[in-house]
Parts: sequence; C-alpha cells; structure tokens
Amino acid sequence: MKKVFWIIILLVYISFAEEGMWMMNQLASLGLKEKGLKINIKEIYDESRPSIVNTIVNLGGATAELVSPDGLLLTNHHVAFGAVQRASTQGIDYITNGFLAKSKEEEIPAPGYIARIIQRIEDVTDQVLADIDPAVDPVEKEKAIEKKIKQLTDQIEGDRDNIEARIAGMYEGNQYVLFVYDVFEDVRMVYVPPQSIGNYGGDIDNWMWPRHTGDFSFLRVYTAPDGKGSKYSKDNMPYRPKRWLKIASDPLKDGDFTFILGYPGLTTRYRTSASVDYYQNYFYPNSIKNFSELISLLEEKGKESQVLSAKVAGLLSGLNNAMKNYQGNLDGMNATGFLQKKKEYEAELVKYINSKPELKKKYGNVLGDIVKIYEKINSKRDYDYALGQFNRLAGTLNRIANNIYYVAKEREKPDSERDPGFSEKDIQQAVSRLKYTYMSYDEGVDKALFKRALNMALSLPEDQTVVELKEFMNQYESVDAFLNAAYTNTRLTNIDSTAALYSKPSAMFNTLNEPLIRLAAVLYPLFEKNRKSDEQINARLKKLRKDYIAMLTAWKGSHIYPDANGTIRLTFGEVAGYKPRDAVEYKPFTTLTGVIEKDTGKEPFNLDPALRTLYNKKDYERWICQALGDVPVAFTHKCDITGGNSGSPVMNAKGELVGIAFDGNYEALTCDWQYDDDLQRTISVDIRYVLFITEKFAGAQYLLDEMGIK
Amino acid sequence: MKKVFWIIILLVYISFAEEGMWMMNQLASLGLKEKGLKINIKEIYDESRPSIVNTIVNLGGATAELVSPDGLLLTNHHVAFGAVQRASTQGIDYITNGFLAKSKEEEIPAPGYIARIIQRIEDVTDQVLADIDPAVDPVEKEKAIEKKIKQLTDQIEGDRDNIEARIAGMYEGNQYVLFVYDVFEDVRMVYVPPQSIGNYGGDIDNWMWPRHTGDFSFLRVYTAPDGKGSKYSKDNMPYRPKRWLKIASDPLKDGDFTFILGYPGLTTRYRTSASVDYYQNYFYPNSIKNFSELISLLEEKGKESQVLSAKVAGLLSGLNNAMKNYQGNLDGMNATGFLQKKKEYEAELVKYINSKPELKKKYGNVLGDIVKIYEKINSKRDYDYALGQFNRLAGTLNRIANNIYYVAKEREKPDSERDPGFSEKDIQQAVSRLKYTYMSYDEGVDKALFKRALNMALSLPEDQTVVELKEFMNQYESVDAFLNAAYTNTRLTNIDSTAALYSKPSAMFNTLNEPLIRLAAVLYPLFEKNRKSDEQINARLKKLRKDYIAMLTAWKGSHIYPDANGTIRLTFGEVAGYKPRDAVEYKPFTTLTGVIEKDTGKEPFNLDPALRTLYNKKDYERWICQALGDVPVAFTHKCDITGGNSGSPVMNAKGELVGIAFDGNYEALTCDWQYDDDLQRTISVDIRYVLFITEKFAGAQYLLDEMGIK
Repeated sequence: MKKVFWIIILLVYISFAEEGMWMMNQLASLGLKEKGLKINIKEIYDESRPSIVNTIVNLGGATAELVSPDGLLLTNHHVAFGAVQRASTQGIDYITNGFLAKSKEEEIPAPGYIARIIQRIEDVTDQVLADIDPAVDPVEKEKAIEKKIKQLTDQIEGDRDNIEARIAGMYEGNQYVLFVYDVFEDVRMVYVPPQSIGNYGGDIDNWMWPRHTGDFSFLRVYTAPDGKGSKYSKDNMPYRPKRWLKIASDPLKDGDFTFILGYPGLTTRYRTSASVDYYQNYFYPNSIKNFSELISLLEEKGKESQVLSAKVAGLLSGLNNAMKNYQGNLDGMNATGFLQKKKEYEAELVKYINSKPELKKKYGNVLGDIVKIYEKINSKRDYDYALGQFNRLAGTLNRIANNIYYVAKEREKPDSERDPGFSEKDIQQAVSRLKYTYMSYDEGVDKALFKRALNMALSLPEDQTVVELKEFMNQYESVDAFLNAAYTNTRLTNIDSTAALYSKPSAMFNTLNEPLIRLAAVLYPLFEKNRKSDEQINARLKKLRKDYIAMLTAWKGSHIYPDANGTIRLTFGEVAGYKPRDAVEYKPFTTLTGVIEKDTGKEPFNLDPALRTLYNKKDYERWICQALGDVPVAFTHKCDITGGNSGSPVMNAKGELVGIAFDGNYEALTCDWQYDDDLQRTISVDIRYVLFITEKFAGAQYLLDEMGIK
Repeated sequence: MKKVFWIIILLVYISFAEEGMWMMNQLASLGLKEKGLKINIKEIYDESRPSIVNTIVNLGGATAELVSPDGLLLTNHHVAFGAVQRASTQGIDYITNGFLAKSKEEEIPAPGYIARIIQRIEDVTDQVLADIDPAVDPVEKEKAIEKKIKQLTDQIEGDRDNIEARIAGMYEGNQYVLFVYDVFEDVRMVYVPPQSIGNYGGDIDNWMWPRHTGDFSFLRVYTAPDGKGSKYSKDNMPYRPKRWLKIASDPLKDGDFTFILGYPGLTTRYRTSASVDYYQNYFYPNSIKNFSELISLLEEKGKESQVLSAKVAGLLSGLNNAMKNYQGNLDGMNATGFLQKKKEYEAELVKYINSKPELKKKYGNVLGDIVKIYEKINSKRDYDYALGQFNRLAGTLNRIANNIYYVAKEREKPDSERDPGFSEKDIQQAVSRLKYTYMSYDEGVDKALFKRALNMALSLPEDQTVVELKEFMNQYESVDAFLNAAYTNTRLTNIDSTAALYSKPSAMFNTLNEPLIRLAAVLYPLFEKNRKSDEQINARLKKLRKDYIAMLTAWKGSHIYPDANGTIRLTFGEVAGYKPRDAVEYKPFTTLTGVIEKDTGKEPFNLDPALRTLYNKKDYERWICQALGDVPVAFTHKCDITGGNSGSPVMNAKGELVGIAFDGNYEALTCDWQYDDDLQRTISVDIRYVLFITEKFAGAQYLLDEMGIK
C-alpha cells in the first residue's frame, strides 16, 4: 500500500488527481487551486452563504443537482427509474417510450422520492462523546452513543417534517458530524428518456467502458407556497433555490480538471490486512464458487419450462449481479496484489509506531488484536457461511419457517433482550407480501436449494460441525427422506395457513407435525448465538479500527479522508482514458457514432429509430466537440466515487456542470477497498449528449431555456 | 467499392500500404521503393539468380522460410503441429512439452511434410490456349484446358520425383502461369515450443488481437548426398541452399515498412454483387442459424454422458469453427456495407463500359448474365441447401449408405460419364477407416441429426419440394416410423457387413431390406442431377468472371492482382494498430508482460512456469524493444494475407526477417472477399520473441549461432 501511496503522491504533480472522498471541512487542505480549480473553494462550500453544496441533492440512495431557478433537477435515468415504473402501471409504458411533460402542469409526482438539501454542517464530536465513559464495554458504549445521537437529532428536528438532522460517525467514531437538511417530499418527473437511450446497453454494458448510455433524467422539486418542504399537494409551487448549477459552455476535453460532489454510500478503505485476507482469500472466492453452482442449478431448472424460467429469474438475476460484483472485487484485488500491498503498508506503520514509545504503548497491540479477532472468525468461517445459506439461499419454505419461528421467539422476550432488528411493522409487511413470495415458489427448485444448503451444512470440517443439525437429521434416513417428509402435506405452501402461523406462540410449534418448523427451531438458537457474538465482534472491531485510524493520523498527519457513509463528499481528478490490458488503450470519450454502431435493433442495444434519423440528418452540429468531430456521449475521469454517487454532478474547473456521474469501469468494482489511479475510472454522461437528446430528440427546448442555454 | 478504392489510393501516399496479393512479375509496378523498400526488387525476385523468392518454401497448405546455410526452416507452431502429433504417439508428449533436438542427429522426421522451392516461373498462357477453340461449350473447354495443362506439366516432370510442375490459371483463366518446384520430401523437426507457448490462448485467442502466441517452430530440409530432393533416408544431408533469409538486426517499430512472401490459398475478391448477395443475405446467415441449432442439439446430447460428449466433440468443434468463420465474414460484410459498395462499384464500371461502344458490345451483358445465373441458383437455394445436409450433417449411417450406393452406381458407368471426383483409392481408404468412423457413432445422436435433415428437406417451400423424398416417406407413417425401421436391425452398424456392401452391384440393393440404402437410392439421382448442373453453372460462371476481370482491366488498367490460388505472392504494408470500435485503440505490439498477465494456469492460458521464472529474473534484456521497454511478442501490420500464408516470413525494408505471419484479426475474417485498410490486420510473431524463447527458454543457442546471430 505504501507503494500505491507514493505513486499517487507522485501523480498528484503529474496528473493533478488524488484518491479520496473528502469532507467539506477538508477542502482547504486539498490544494485544489494548484490542481486546476479556477474558482475559490468558498464557491464550493461556505457556511455563511449559498454555495455549490446547496445545489447538491440527496435523493435517498443517490444524488441529484439543481440546474435552474425553478427547482429543476438532473440525475441518472436509473435513479428516476422507480418513478417511471410506478407511473407506467396505468397502461402507459413510460419505460419504453420515455416521458416528457410539455409544461409544469403535466409533470407527474414521484412518490417515495425525497430531496434533502444541506442547510448546515457542524462538528459535534464533543457533544456526542461528552457523557460517554471510554472505559465501558464496547457494546454498551455503542448503545450509549446511539442514544445520545438520537437525543441530539430529535432536539433539532422537533416535530417538523421538513427538517432532518443526521449525525454521522467519521473515522470509525473518531469524529461526529451533524448534517441538517431541508426536506422536500414533493418531487416530480419532468423528462425521462426512453429506456433504449437511458439504459442503452443494459446489463451487458453495466460496469463497462466504452459506454454509450444516456443515463440522465430531469425531475423537479416542489415546495409549499411558503417555500418550505412539503408532501405532495396540487397547490405546491416549484422550489426557488438561492443557487443552482450553471451548464458549462467551454467544451470539456481530455486532461481537464473535474470534480464531483455527491453522497457516496459505503467504503471500507481502512480495513487492515486481516480483513482483506478474509475477503480476498475466503469470502469472495468461496461465494463465487457457491453462487456459480447455484446459478447452474437454477439455469438447469429454468430450462424445464417457461413458467419455471420466470420463477427463478429474480433469484438468478440477483446471484448474477452479486457474482459480477464479487468477481470484479476479486479480480481487482488479485491484479493489484492488494493483500501484499496492505501488509507492506502495515509493516511500515508498525515500524513507525514502534519507534515512538508513547504510540507503541497506546497502539502497539491494535493490529495484533484485529488479527486475533479474525483468527476467531476464520476458525468457524465455514460454519458461519453454511448457516448463512439458511438466510436466503435454502429455498422459500425454509426461509418462511425460520421467520415464523423467529417472530414467535422474539415476541416472547423482554424488550432489553430482543433483537434490535425486530420490527412488528416489518412482520406485517412480510405477511402482506406473502402472495408475492409464493409467485416465485416451485417445489422442485425449493427442494433442490434446501438440499444443497443442508448438504453444505452437514459436510463441514469436523471442528466446525453443526452438531444440532446432525442430531436433528439423524431422525431421518437421509436428507431426501427429510425433504419428502417436510414438503408432503406441509401447510406452509398455503398463504392463509402460513399467515396464521405468524401470530402463534412458539410452544405451539412443538405439537405441530411440521418438519420445516421443527428444523427452524433447531436453527434459531444457532442464529441467536451468532447474532450476539457478531454484536460483540463488531463493537470490538469498531474500537480497534478507530485506534487504527488514530495510528494512521499519528503517522501521516490529518490528511486522511473518512470512509464513505452516505454523507456529502468531494472528489476530483482529470478526464483520462486508461490501458486495460496489454496493447489496448481506452480513450476517455465515446461518441454518437459509437451509439449508432452498437445498435443491433435488439434489447439492450435497440436504439430508438428517431435517434438514428437525427444522426443520418446530421441534426446535431451544435453539440459537436471539435476535437472528436462528433457529439460526445460519455467520458471517463479520475474521480473516486462509489454507490450513492449515482446522479452526482461533474463540474469543471469553473464549477460548471459538464456531466452526470453514473457508473465506474469494471476495474473500479474494487472501489470499496481501494482506488487505483492507473485503472479505476468514473463514467459520466456528457452534458452535451444530455442537451442534444433533450433538445433534438425530445424536442424540449423549454428545458434548455430554463437552464439559461442560448 | 469505388469509395474503398479511392480511400486506399489516398492511403497509399499517407500510409504506404496497398491491398493485394501480387505476382512476382508485377513487383516492378508496385512502386515499392517509394513506399519504403530499401533494396532492389531484383533482390526479391530475379529470374537469373537466387533471390528471396528462393528462400520461401511451400509446405503443403502453408509457408516456411529458409533461415540458415544448413536448410533450417522457420514456420508456425500450428503448421508443424501435425508432425509433433505424429512424433508424440510413442508415449512421449511433445505437444505439451515441446521438442528440441540438441544436435542434428536428434532431429525427428516429419513424414508427409513436403518442401517445395521455386526453380522457375513462366507465363504459359499462349501454350495452354494454343489449341483451344474459344467457341466450344464452356464445360468442354475447361476439360480441354485441364488436359492440355496435364500434358505440359507431365512433360516437364518426366519421371522425376524431385521436380514438380504446376500451371495455375490467373484472373479466372485470363492468364496461365507455370511454376516449377524443387521438391524435398525429407523434412525434420528441430525445435517446437510447448503448446503453452506455441498455441498460448488456443481457440479463445484464435483470430483475436491482442495476441500473445509464440506461434513458431524450426524444421530442417534434408537432401540426398547429391544435393537433390529425396524421400527420407538416414544418409541424407542438410539442404545447402544458395540463399537464406538474414535475421533483422534493426528493431522493428510502429509505422515500419514490411512485406510478406508466401502461398495464400484462395480468395474471391472479384466476385460480383450477385455472389456477395447470395453469401451475405443467404448462405452465411442461413448456415449460422442452421449450425447454431446443430450445435445446441449436439451440446444437449453431449451432456448426457462423458462418452457421448467425446463422440460429438469432433463434429461440434468443426461446426463451431465454421460458425466463427461465417459470423466473422458476415460481421465484416455488414459492418462495411459490402454489398452496397459492390453495387456502387459495379454501377461505375457499367457506366464506363457503356461509354465505349466496343466494350459495350463485348461485355454489355456480362453482369446481367451473372445475375441470371444467380437467379437460377436462388430459385432453388433452399432445395440445394437441404439436400446438402445429407452430405455430412445427417448422421453417420446416412452418409455411409449414400456412399455405398454412390460407389456401386459410379462403378457401373462408362469412364466418360463417371463423376471426375470418383476414385477407387479414396474408396479403399474410406473402407479401411470405417473403424474410426464408427468411433464417433451413437444411435441417438445419429437419429436426431438424420431426423433434422429429413424434416428440413420435407418442409421446403412448395416450389422447391423434394418430390421424390416426399413420395418415399409416404411409405411410412411418420419420419420417426421411418427412422425406427431404418435403425432397427440395420447391418450398417457392423463394420464387416458395411465393408462388404462396398463391393456389391447396385441392383443387389433393390432386394435388400435396408431402408437407409433405399433412401440413398432415392437421393442419388438428385445428387447426380445437382452435380451435373453445378458443373454447367461453374463453367459458365468462370467464363463470365473471366470477362468481368477483362472489363476491370479495360477500366482500371492492368494494375490488378489475381485472386489467391496457392501460388507465390507478395503483399506489403506498414506496422500499424487499429481502432476496432468507438473509444478503443489497439496498439501494434504486444509484450512479454502481456503474456504473463494472461496466465491463469488453466488451458489455454497455462503458461510454462519456466517462462514466468525468466520474466521474474528479467532474463530477457537482450531482446527488449526500447520503445516498448519490454520484449515484443506479436505485432499487427497492413499486409494482405489469407489461409496458406501461415508461416510466411515478414521482412523489413532491407528484406530481413522481422517476424512470421500466423493469423489475421477478427475483422480480417472477411479477407477472402475484401481488404479494409482501416480494420484488417495481419498478426505476426515478432522475431525477437522467437529468438528469446529459442535462446533463453529452450536453451538452443546453437540455432542462433547457425542463423548468424551474435
């Protein structure tokens, strides 16, 4: 890792890029002016007056940006997709055809879409930790902190719906930062391009470069007539922000400085080698092997009939997605020798810590203690992995049986002992959704999945045997015999009988001839034990990881960015292609000609013929980039993003909008763990393609006028 | 097509490349000096003294080159593969381990490998056509020409085994050229790298760039003690040629001039739009569809057992190869709008011809007559395609039954009426190989293939119905009923009974209860009719194509190269990468680092660990290319080659050896039809990689000494 750091430090001067998702109070330390920024950093974030930060919108798990004085938002097509889907249920297929409101009156509400805009950011570490006894047991300490945070945020929010306060722990709890948001629950659809543009390339091109997806949509924020956030009402008015982003007029080109503001969700950049070892050498390869076997099983089953194929499609798609993600992570780790680099980096850190007696005394055992915890984790990892299969991957009936038994047992506990994740509301929801659950049920598939999970759990290494399961299965001649007994005459395939079981006391199940629930009763205490032990392990790891960050700070100084946690961050880096493999070079811009070339007429490359007509008529002159001789569609740059950044604005040196971030390249699948300047790239849709499609394809000139484009 | 020509003409000045596989008597017209050649063209080919042409070896369907005064040959690994395979049957696996003779005594004979080296080239058009009546029927005329050619070549060869004469028709018979070869039947294996180097990347990388295959081998030509070609004898001596190729000492780099001499097999560059239409819009798409269905069928069957999987492997592999080839051809045609370009080109040609009354009179109907022939072909193309299935793709028993009936019928004909392809020698071979034929036989697979072919032939459009087949099948309740009758108690699954049938008279089959042969008797006259009609069509097409070439010559002058036909040709063009698609650039050199990066440990990317060791020890300094900072492995250049060029030497401007051609890129799969300067590339192994592997990996310093490398 040290090598990587050095390379990056070198590259700062060569390429003006630097890894990191930086907090707003760190901007001054980044030397952005030297790296190419042409505006004052106060333009980006200023406590005392509206700045670019106030144009950035948190949209649940994604990001959007204000681009007009009338509350117009830009975000990704895939971010607006849920709204389009919901609006399409009335017989009109907005997914395929796209949606354009010709005027504000035609805009369609997007229920569930909540826009949050930052009002205030404040370091509240002292307040949060004021009454916390540092010597207390880690689990208790975490609970006390959570309680204190709730007190503070409740105090700010009061009973107002249009204000939200969130306190986020940075650096594993070394720092606590308060974010106060204005909340707007009335968001509406303005223009969403057809799927054949907004999701052009679909799953095939997902995580891939070169990319030709027009992944953008326009939404609008509405407020109550008094200008405050409000739920949907027909009396609401377009939001009138004090500040919005200006669309860039200078053409973006290779090597240009860019920066992104957005809401990255979760990274694990400060994990130690013990954790990397676990993922790189156990979790990822093991899961890939397991998932690919499951995928084969489901694909085989799916071949039997169209009905079966449809039933397994959901699970298959989820497994395939997870596989691609895990494989990308593993490829990235292996290709960069990630574990080895982490170890070398830690060796340097230890050398430094050991050279300072005071630090050695305080932190000398931190890495060793983490290793010990992972030794414990590893000593029963196959056991844990096999038990984990009964969570989602052992069939529908097993999952329902486990859930019924869990609900009964948790309900019977006193509050203080109950699983913090237990929620009567969730249970009601699960019961009311049973009809959907059974839609994908098939006895043959279910049995096959269940059998697989049982066999996995029954063939563990001797020192990790699930004794209770073995004893239970001894009642039956074979796994098949158990399965036959379990699936014959079970009441769990009947929705009403199943729903009824959700309100029964646990003792009642002892008298029931329902092998599925009998097994659930055997598994429940094992899950329980693991949950409690995980709680302990996580609290202890959190404390050690907090110390680890403190060690890094002592060594490297305070120029460290915290892991992503859904709070606003800035990342910067220049427009750049990359060399994915020997003799291959990827250029940083794709073009409209490339969009046309990919068109096969078949999903996901079924281009809207109207776009081909525009191309043939060369009706795009205005949006041509001279250097390319073509309309730019998407570009790669060295910004450091992750899930949650979807829809984030990409700005040039003048702070003007040049694109919308929507993905990373395949090599960036390891972005949760590391940033590699040579290979990882953010993929953004070029604002010129957004404007070309909006003006020429959608014919929505009025949106360009609203954004002040002449 | 005109556009293409113009682009190429422009590029001649920009890039010094030009499409074409040129004959030796055309070298002076190519302006090679202006394009970069630094030696006199007399160094390449000189009638009166040894030139580079005399270092080029025709090796059956491939090419090799002399590289030492002791008859050392360089060619491709895949060209030497057959020899390695045969030498490996004695329990030693030279395929996996490679083979190195430590001295000449250890060299292993490569039976079947025949080296032909040009002694003389002569235009014999006048002699060939001297007594031919131009007014005679096209079929008769072709037969007369063939007879005349045989006379002439027999005269030259006499009873000598070490001389071979071949007269090849150029430009569809507008010109006839005599080639006299010295023939050497004693060729031996010297050094063949292990498959993990020589075929690194296997089928996955086949036709692909970037490529990391060390596709080379060393052989040696031996002669009788008197220096003349001879069959193998232990008294033979290494061949002492008057000339051999010098290995280049200047490093090859991007943009450098290169040329290739070799034996390209077959192209169809001068086909008219009627033919292109047939292939682009019928034959390729139809065959791809048909083959992919056959592949699915065989893959499904193969899943039933390992034995079945092995039995269908050969046919599957053949179908997959053909599919990739057809798909590549079709992709190339579609991507370049080939048919449209041909049509535009012909429109220009017609315009020119019509502007000259004399030419119009002579050639005014040529294109129209070709179109008429294709109209006839197209009117029964489904009929012909379906009948064609019974040739190879309707199962083993059907093929054997057809063959038995064909042999009986042909034998009974007078000489003059017999199929020219009939050969008693071939029949003896087929019978003696029956045991191998049955190795891949499985009743279930055979029935499924047969059923498919029958159903295809029974469901043709009404105007193409195979009436005789329909009537025959009317005897049975269904296709399945026929199949059951045919396969139950057939004697064709017994080798001895089958072999015996090959000597029976045709009348005997009427009394035999063998539905498979009964059907063969129905199909035979249909095949016969088609063979005779094909003979007519081909002779007429040949005449028209000859006229078409004459039209082109009248229009464009004589600067036209003839289609490839297995005779020696020169092609030239600079080292260059290409842009395969939007935002992607392929560089012209791959590197040793790229070889290491592709290593997965699994075939076909299972690198020999010893090579990785050399890499880690950096034991390759001598072969580094400074511009790359690495050992070059393969490179792309703009030479225009096709099958048969495998193993051809790539030479630099000084006529020195810089590489060995072994493949084209995917875009070059349409090379039989066209050459595209932007996209098609020859792939050659860099001589520096050859020398690095030979010196450092094989430890065969003596071969470098022999080639005069210091």
